[in-house]
Amino acid sequence: MPGSTFGTLFRVSTWGESHGPALGCVIDGCPAGLTLNEELIQPYLDRRKPGTSAMTTARSEADKVRILSGVFEGRTTGTPISLMIENTSQISKDYGNLSDTFRPGHADYGFYTKYGHRDYRGGGRSSGRETAARVAAGAVAALILENYGIRLRAYTTAIGPVALSDGLADKLSLDEISALSTNAACMPDEDSAAAALKAVEAARAECDSLGGIVECRIEGVPAGIGEPVFDKLDAMLGHALFSIGAVKAVEIGDGIKAAAAKGSENNDRMRMKDGDVSFDTNHAGGILGGISNGNTILARAYFKPTPSIYQPQDTVNEKGEDISLTIKGRHDPVVVPRAVVVVEAMCAITLLDLYLQNRNSRI
Amino acid sequence: MPGSTFGTLFRVSTWGESHGPALGCVIDGCPAGLTLNEELIQPYLDRRKPGTSAMTTARSEADKVRILSGVFEGRTTGTPISLMIENTSQISKDYGNLSDTFRPGHADYGFYTKYGHRDYRGGGRSSGRETAARVAAGAVAALILENYGIRLRAYTTAIGPVALSDGLADKLSLDEISALSTNAACMPDEDSAAAALKAVEAARAECDSLGGIVECRIEGVPAGIGEPVFDKLDAMLGHALFSIGAVKAVEIGDGIKAAAAKGSENNDRMRMKDGDVSFDTNHAGGILGGISNGNTILARAYFKPTPSIYQPQDTVNEKGEDISLTIKGRHDPVVVPRAVVVVEAMCAITLLDLYLQNRNSRI
Amino acid sequence: MPGSTFGTLFRVSTWGESHGPALGCVIDGCPAGLTLNEELIQPYLDRRKPGTSAMTTARSEADKVRILSGVFEGRTTGTPISLMIENTSQISKDYGNLSDTFRPGHADYGFYTKYGHRDYRGGGRSSGRETAARVAAGAVAALILENYGIRLRAYTTAIGPVALSDGLADKLSLDEISALSTNAACMPDEDSAAAALKAVEAARAECDSLGGIVECRIEGVPAGIGEPVFDKLDAMLGHALFSIGAVKAVEIGDGIKAAAAKGSENNDRMRMKDGDVSFDTNHAGGILGGISNGNTILARAYFKPTPSIYQPQDTVNEKGEDISLTIKGRHDPVVVPRAVVVVEAMCAITLLDLYLQNRNSRI
Amino acid sequence: MPGSTFGTLFRVSTWGESHGPALGCVIDGCPAGLTLNEELIQPYLDRRKPGTSAMTTARSEADKVRILSGVFEGRTTGTPISLMIENTSQISKDYGNLSDTFRPGHADYGFYTKYGHRDYRGGGRSSGRETAARVAAGAVAALILENYGIRLRAYTTAIGPVALSDGLADKLSLDEISALSTNAACMPDEDSAAAALKAVEAARAECDSLGGIVECRIEGVPAGIGEPVFDKLDAMLGHALFSIGAVKAVEIGDGIKAAAAKGSENNDRMRMKDGDVSFDTNHAGGILGGISNGNTILARAYFKPTPSIYQPQDTVNEKGEDISLTIKGRHDPVVVPRAVVVVEAMCAITLLDLYLQNRNSRI
Repeated sequence: MPGSTFGTLFRVSTWGESHGPALGCVIDGCPAGLTLNEELIQPYLDRRKPGTSAMTTARSEADKVRILSGVFEGRTTGTPISLMIENTSQISKDYGNLSDTFRPGHADYGFYTKYGHRDYRGGGRSSGRETAARVAAGAVAALILENYGIRLRAYTTAIGPVALSDGLADKLSLDEISALSTNAACMPDEDSAAAALKAVEAARAECDSLGGIVECRIEGVPAGIGEPVFDKLDAMLGHALFSIGAVKAVEIGDGIKAAAAKGSENNDRMRMKDGDVSFDTNHAGGILGGISNGNTILARAYFKPTPSIYQPQDTVNEKGEDISLTIKGRHDPVVVPRAVVVVEAMCAITLLDLYLQNRNSRI
Repeated sequence: MPGSTFGTLFRVSTWGESHGPALGCVIDGCPAGLTLNEELIQPYLDRRKPGTSAMTTARSEADKVRILSGVFEGRTTGTPISLMIENTSQISKDYGNLSDTFRPGHADYGFYTKYGHRDYRGGGRSSGRETAARVAAGAVAALILENYGIRLRAYTTAIGPVALSDGLADKLSLDEISALSTNAACMPDEDSAAAALKAVEAARAECDSLGGIVECRIEGVPAGIGEPVFDKLDAMLGHALFSIGAVKAVEIGDGIKAAAAKGSENNDRMRMKDGDVSFDTNHAGGILGGISNGNTILARAYFKPTPSIYQPQDTVNEKGEDISLTIKGRHDPVVVPRAVVVVEAMCAITLLDLYLQNRNSRI
Repeated sequence: MPGSTFGTLFRVSTWGESHGPALGCVIDGCPAGLTLNEELIQPYLDRRKPGTSAMTTARSEADKVRILSGVFEGRTTGTPISLMIENTSQISKDYGNLSDTFRPGHADYGFYTKYGHRDYRGGGRSSGRETAARVAAGAVAALILENYGIRLRAYTTAIGPVALSDGLADKLSLDEISALSTNAACMPDEDSAAAALKAVEAARAECDSLGGIVECRIEGVPAGIGEPVFDKLDAMLGHALFSIGAVKAVEIGDGIKAAAAKGSENNDRMRMKDGDVSFDTNHAGGILGGISNGNTILARAYFKPTPSIYQPQDTVNEKGEDISLTIKGRHDPVVVPRAVVVVEAMCAITLLDLYLQNRNSRI
Repeated sequence: MPGSTFGTLFRVSTWGESHGPALGCVIDGCPAGLTLNEELIQPYLDRRKPGTSAMTTARSEADKVRILSGVFEGRTTGTPISLMIENTSQISKDYGNLSDTFRPGHADYGFYTKYGHRDYRGGGRSSGRETAARVAAGAVAALILENYGIRLRAYTTAIGPVALSDGLADKLSLDEISALSTNAACMPDEDSAAAALKAVEAARAECDSLGGIVECRIEGVPAGIGEPVFDKLDAMLGHALFSIGAVKAVEIGDGIKAAAAKGSENNDRMRMKDGDVSFDTNHAGGILGGISNGNTILARAYFKPTPSIYQPQDTVNEKGEDISLTIKGRHDPVVVPRAVVVVEAMCAITLLDLYLQNRNSRI
């Protein structure tokens, strides 16, 4: 039942509902000695905030993070880090008509059958707002990883029908991707971003919504990370990415394409280069047998379109009646741009946890 | 580090190497009262055994399971169930040339960098043989699930370029799929199976290998299974399926296609039918917000082609030398048909664990 | 490393330092449907507050608990419950001379060697203040247990040289104990409590401190609770009670005396009584083979004297110098009365976790 | 429910019943590179075997351990280590009259109420035989700890009324204790051992049984081991020791005596000695605030007398009838000498797990 905790050594427990007083997380197991303060975490949360484009709705969420414990004189102490974000922009009255209704494509019916009693306001616990806590924890993980020479960055590769051209991202450095992805679509290509914006505007005009794809690239991971046979690096990334609402598929490296390739095409050959093992290709996405091989790690998450659309939809209510529902309130016509930093956060948390576990591989 | 344990309440720990004396698992947390004996588990293991077609190699593995504990007078007692399978068909000399070599596409290099010391014979711990223990545990899980009215079945939907025609499987009942999938390809369609066999023969003739896709269908799952926000049903299935060697992508329901759909197309509408909630479509694959919705659950795992191919390949060895490697020994040109029951086993273990967890959702 | 989390199904993560802005806990896995609000938790925290007797110091801690998540319309929703208590009474300047000093009998040296960097103010994370979060979580656990017909109560049986007369508590009902233990010593006997107060006053006059014993009685526990072989009910109680700072011994039932008894004296005989199994004695303290037997559960925790005493003490500092330390600040001359509700809280959390686990003992 | 697993990083899962075909354990998380073979483990198991004195019964258990996985070419590989011990000396017919009876002082009634279905032969899972698997795992842990400069040894300090004279053990080195404890009582003092033997003979003559005390001393533990606030070193030792059947009390350092001491008596003062922190006394038993302080660790477990006595005893059966039971079969009149190495094993497992966790305390 306690499904709100993730990780073995770097363990994150998130809490909070969309329309409660606050949300946050406790990080249990953060090593001591990391320089940490609110200013270092806030930029990650700001990347998750709704912007001002057609991609997002008009609500303004401050999402200011506060460190309540675990940091003393600017450095972590090894004790639990409690992070809190107050909810300031909630308008509960928008959700009155949902109190006994199951929205199509949402977790409402599952929560109702599971718990009997649910906070229906804004999706309650199943709201995307919960991911703010993940992003805060992911920021801490990313800061530690940087100390270990590991850097990562997520970005959008597709929104609805608009996809980044194949191989485009691979030619860019992480820094270039960061610099180029500041647009509303979080796509490292202005033309694609512009086209994506148009596609979203069109969908919104039809009271409809779009999905998309987020890719995360992780560089500097030493070979050896991942704990076979069940807690393989790819298995934990799969767990982490599928735990983000709306993700319906996850790929590592070539992913689905690998299933149609031949062994001779798919194997990445090794050669010595400057005294180190290197690979001529990276079909594997940096992971073999569940362990990092020193190559760049590539993971991809596929997001379904936002289920909250403004068209009338057939559904049922708690009384067991067929009804037609027209959703009100403020909903992003596509969650992908705001999910980018969530993907990055979950990858950072996962990688750090396995990095710490790997410290005990040898006597 | 202890990555060989999976599950919270129904907890499976596998052990064993390809060329050690035996392999097996301990199931900690199996409820008492289940009728269990070796004859009920063995058929699952038999489905994993290499057959006699071009799909598999000539080795004969008995894979006889033995129950060492946890069962008394034909029923489980609630104490740990120890299952053991002796290794009887191992020929270690085939692997002599691999003792200090890293095979492309394999876990060799990762294990070497991680542990320093590895059992190189037949892949050791990273061998597909480890999955025999999972299948044995999965059989126990499936038997329990049957008691709860839950049935599941995995089957091949593609091998290399040969795919089951779209929607074909959806028209078949689980019983029909079981009856039709007894061919070497484990495909519920004779024509596809025959075509797949030809494709494998062609790949083998070129000293090459193929990958493919396995789908698992789970029926009878009540709404409410899955533990948000991290141990969602899809997240745990993702974890479980990615933990199988060679899996490079996982989908739930429409999966990747969902990312290109509009919300109006992707939402499954609910209607009351005979007093129960029913869905007109199943794009979600039976899971919304990480919780089962009562609809059929559909998960898909994409397998890369067997990395062991008989062509000479560039690689490096432990001494840091560039070498050309020609792999010997017996290797399946495609792992998919034998992986089908492994996918089924991991889905069964995952679902049972979350089913048991759900018993505590309410006071 | 992540040692601030306790429990498997009812999982409590505490956070917070003595002199940080706040402390609290996240309860992950609380079943849905429990009536809960701040007013139901606060009385437990009030029992932990320093009183006005010689037993405690003059500081006033408000210790007002706030529910931040997991409760909607007065009932738990099954999602994580975040509880926060703001620190309002901290005077950090008192601790200046401790910033690089290791107090005898304290965790200072351990924290310093372990983490390198520590919050020395008031003991930081190792302060007794951390137990406020446990008490809040314990209150929730106790409220759930009540729903299952399980009631528990802890009380002082000894302070320094003053012990409750043997068997006195056994003659009282839980309600009587509650009513009689409202004195400053939390002893269910006015004479003993008065004597204890005198002993504490005498110790305080000598700039010294005392320890004592807390007993917890749990009634209404059905037979069958406890998870052999490692998570036995007594093993988990042992874990829970030893996790309270200052506890140096734990007993179940007759405890230490059992080691000197003969089998014929120590075995509790069973007889049928009104259709139920009953025991003529309770040497076992309600637990056999790690499983509850339906008898009253008795656990006892032995607390060492407060290490903070006002006499000059030899010790060393971070620079590796021998020094003489005179501790200032406000310290209780005995922690036992305030630890009573902490013992009760840890017993409640432990029992509930195992109660929930037991729901899955049978198919 | 899955209570047969202990540890976070060095994780031991035991399995097996007294009268099943075998018992054993899986160690998941053993670091790679340890020299390991059966000959290194067997001596620990031999210390647990029944001897030939009045202390034990006449049964001969071979208890030969077999390594089934995780070791290659004489060294651990970092993969799960499966250890198996075949049961060879079981005579099930002795237990026929117990099939529906609850023995006083035993787990029978608990197991029956919990699981409904139980292996009654020789106590089944609740038999002391289960500890053979712990001893095998403990041997591996002890071998690793030796690599880290940590040594430990358990020994008997009391059997029934016969106790080692106070402070006697403290004057002996670990090597001296090992050399002196080879007697049937495992007491490091011949006179005490002889007196204990007489006490046991007297109890046996009366068809009665005795309990006793086992102490474990651990040397060479660096300061910093233990994970506050719940997985403190003493809390984990408490968990570990209480998980051994028949243990009714656990002490760390002065234990119970500490509760009656004054702070000025109980605090261990620190001084610099040869550049290191040293303590003038060791009332704390090497643990402060749940973290090792570099001093010798002292833990004590109190065992109740063997519940299986040959006197007729009142009890009830599954049908709910009052009966008189006379136990047959072979039962040790005191379990303490054979439990000594079990205590040592559990301390080794606990300490190693926390030692490995401590590797991640700092960035």
